Amino acid sequence: MSKQPKTAISPTRAENYPEWYQQVVKAADLAENSDVRGCMVIKPWGFAVWENIQRRLDAMFKATGHENAYFPLFIPMSFMEKEAAHVEGFAKECAVVTHHRLEPDGKGGLRPAPSAQLEEPLIVRPTSETIIGATFARWVQSYRDLPILLNQWCNVVRWELRTRMFLRTTEFLWQEGHTVHATEAEAREETMRILDIYADFAEGDVAMPVIKGEKTAGERFPGAVATYAIEALMQDRKALQAGTSHFLGQNFAKAQDIKFAAESGEQVFAWTTSWGMSTRMVGGLIMTHGDDDGLVLPPRLAPAHVVVLPIYRNDEERADVLAYCVTLKQELESQVYDGETVRVRIDDRDLRGGEKKWQWVKRGVPMRVEVGPRDVAAKAAFVSRRDVGGKGEGTPRDQLVGTIAATLREIQQTLFNRAAKLRDDASVRIDNLKDFEAFFTPRDEQRPEIHGGLAYCHFVDSPEMDEKLKALKVTIRCVPLAGDDEPGKCIFTGQPSTRRGVFAKAY
Amino acid sequence: MSKQPKTAISPTRAENYPEWYQQVVKAADLAENSDVRGCMVIKPWGFAVWENIQRRLDAMFKATGHENAYFPLFIPMSFMEKEAAHVEGFAKECAVVTHHRLEPDGKGGLRPAPSAQLEEPLIVRPTSETIIGATFARWVQSYRDLPILLNQWCNVVRWELRTRMFLRTTEFLWQEGHTVHATEAEAREETMRILDIYADFAEGDVAMPVIKGEKTAGERFPGAVATYAIEALMQDRKALQAGTSHFLGQNFAKAQDIKFAAESGEQVFAWTTSWGMSTRMVGGLIMTHGDDDGLVLPPRLAPAHVVVLPIYRNDEERADVLAYCVTLKQELESQVYDGETVRVRIDDRDLRGGEKKWQWVKRGVPMRVEVGPRDVAAKAAFVSRRDVGGKGEGTPRDQLVGTIAATLREIQQTLFNRAAKLRDDASVRIDNLKDFEAFFTPRDEQRPEIHGGLAYCHFVDSPEMDEKLKALKVTIRCVPLAGDDEPGKCIFTGQPSTRRGVFAKAY
Repeated sequence: MSKQPKTAISPTRAENYPEWYQQVVKAADLAENSDVRGCMVIKPWGFAVWENIQRRLDAMFKATGHENAYFPLFIPMSFMEKEAAHVEGFAKECAVVTHHRLEPDGKGGLRPAPSAQLEEPLIVRPTSETIIGATFARWVQSYRDLPILLNQWCNVVRWELRTRMFLRTTEFLWQEGHTVHATEAEAREETMRILDIYADFAEGDVAMPVIKGEKTAGERFPGAVATYAIEALMQDRKALQAGTSHFLGQNFAKAQDIKFAAESGEQVFAWTTSWGMSTRMVGGLIMTHGDDDGLVLPPRLAPAHVVVLPIYRNDEERADVLAYCVTLKQELESQVYDGETVRVRIDDRDLRGGEKKWQWVKRGVPMRVEVGPRDVAAKAAFVSRRDVGGKGEGTPRDQLVGTIAATLREIQQTLFNRAAKLRDDASVRIDNLKDFEAFFTPRDEQRPEIHGGLAYCHFVDSPEMDEKLKALKVTIRCVPLAGDDEPGKCIFTGQPSTRRGVFAKAY
Repeated sequence: MSKQPKTAISPTRAENYPEWYQQVVKAADLAENSDVRGCMVIKPWGFAVWENIQRRLDAMFKATGHENAYFPLFIPMSFMEKEAAHVEGFAKECAVVTHHRLEPDGKGGLRPAPSAQLEEPLIVRPTSETIIGATFARWVQSYRDLPILLNQWCNVVRWELRTRMFLRTTEFLWQEGHTVHATEAEAREETMRILDIYADFAEGDVAMPVIKGEKTAGERFPGAVATYAIEALMQDRKALQAGTSHFLGQNFAKAQDIKFAAESGEQVFAWTTSWGMSTRMVGGLIMTHGDDDGLVLPPRLAPAHVVVLPIYRNDEERADVLAYCVTLKQELESQVYDGETVRVRIDDRDLRGGEKKWQWVKRGVPMRVEVGPRDVAAKAAFVSRRDVGGKGEGTPRDQLVGTIAATLREIQQTLFNRAAKLRDDASVRIDNLKDFEAFFTPRDEQRPEIHGGLAYCHFVDSPEMDEKLKALKVTIRCVPLAGDDEPGKCIFTGQPSTRRGVFAKAY
């Protein structure tokens, strides 16, 4: 066996990607499993990433006229019965509240009090179209009341059998937008506006290249007329759906009686949309940029851009070094990166230098700045970038401060470029089933290596296709909105087709 | 009957305070009752107030070393059994999840699937000491891991029979802080640090004067060693508890096995605290400052500091007036009030001028600026302050912009002073039971007028006192931390006492 270079995360991505993912989540202090099956505890470092996602997305929503509101956690069971496709989609994974009190069970424990059984069970929201729609039905009377452009940040619950932190958990955090419009055109425009916001956020802030596309009928949101998504490729060449925007047509409006007096005086049904992005994005971030040393954070979402590590051997050195670090921190914080103050932490915990440094490597901080007595004397610091690895280099203090914003911009761009190259290298146009099967089949069934990618293929949605895909564990991700209108033949059925879809194994 | 001046809210505070409150919530577009019993919909204007509360409190927590995290919504029922006082306090008001799937009931509806009954029911968190404590037990191993200073912003559920929007709802939003310390002294210090933050926030941002005090045994948080609260007086002379900080001693640490290796190597139990402030504060804000024309917002928490109302009769005037309003908005937004950009909205909706103006009066915006063609010509605007009423006055544009921050500061101070005066006027020292009973007894039992206030009385906690208080519907709010150590006699029992408590009718 050849000698492997030592990495901070074991196993490496190549050795066992799913296990690598769990180890990064743990080593970066992002989250951990809780005492409640399928629910996670989001630890401070992980939550700080989510707060940055929230702050930036929220600003984008507000800049496009959306306001935040809050609707109840609980949904009466009868509400779930109103939209047939919707209930079909969500009834199987609902947490159901049936009692409103506990009482002693006579054996020293507790039980739900039989006398406190609810007349109508309540569902913990898996998504809020039904309860918000019922509210909209009260609010919408006239065309003057429209559009209504709302968003809420909240928790939702979907009972999951197999969970993985951030990617699929029983409870997760998200934002869900819900809008009502007077016309189909306006509702469709809103649906696409949000899809664009999601794509801009993913590419600009998460540094995650995405494909904007429409879902096929089988992958649509239950009750939607059309579902659009952004799809990204992870480093194991599986796709991740990272945000969805739904044009609901008049389906929910009719199920919930959201209608209004048009300018003509006529009573007409409204047009609605809904859209969401969740803590799943943190999982996507990890799998897009993480390496065998742990998390790699894109600067725009990093809770700290820079961590300063003072190094000293005694109290006298400590005083000098710390004083230097404090003023260096202030200088760095006076710089502006991407419209925000540069975020700097000093880590002066009583830990060995190596251990401390590696904690911040694993946590993915974009830049580490080590300061020892010699740096103080030389007005310098030892600077390392998380995206390039290597040992770092001595840097004059003035230069570090003067170039900090440019360096962070460069790191953000480097991460995007790297992810884009990986995606492009793993994207292929495939025109026959044999090549398609080979592309998605690992060479070693016992220990499947990383394989596959994004296959762009002509297709006609059909049971034959579904069957083939199921056998290969491949899904159609979307029909990309950009380009590619060309005549061709469905690789599954031979039927004529005018557009290619994107196929991949997926999360 | 004398002719009443017309008010925007009917009934007035004097006529029927509880109904006035509901009407203000409605007229200010803050919230409404939902389709789920006891749960409210927080509308955009109300939620924007809550977002400002969140942003400012969150900054105060972070400035004192706290980090945000997120813990599960659900708590296993067995966790509730661990701390005896805690289960006693919360078991009666728990929403209980017993199933994880719905299925068709055979009659066209749905039912909880019997095959999907949970082995152990889950409680929807009424507060998170138990689930967070179980996590802390894993995290805390050594004195080096301490302190842990966490906060989470989330929803909680306590089944309430009588609900009132913001003041008491089955689901509400809050922040709950949870900390772990190595020593009793540090935990006590943390408890008081948070109480101070709550008081500073209430007085500085909500402009609501508060009394910091300790709760008596009967009013303590279930499981706490000591509970401290801030208490405010509403305009109907009832008290409102607006935030609580609990010193939990080692009670939860022992119930949940949160222990660590001290520097000596010895295994010892940790000391914990918890503390919370909720959407109830919005109710307190309404009742502290609202008047018979609706909501009055303290500038620091107002979603908009200024609303600009363009007034015109035709398209030509419209173009000029709007252009003027847009540049005025920009100039106002270039001003800084209280460390933040001045927040300005232009309301150009197609509504009658009077209706529009009154909407913003009822919504409590601190300043209204009306702009018509004559104002454009004169480089002026017609400016009204929400706190002083009256008709407003013509003001040169330069002066409006140049004094905006000072004016907002003045409004904030005026609101605080007014509330402080009302409270002081309604605060009395009472030294005998007869006066106490008279103070808390309305003259007309059938239509009780606003009466009572804060009574500072000597007391000894006893069954006799409880009985008297229950009969009068009065509660002891707290024992104030500030001043008042003096010998005296309990007005209920005649026993010697060294301190006065504050008594009031309360929400």
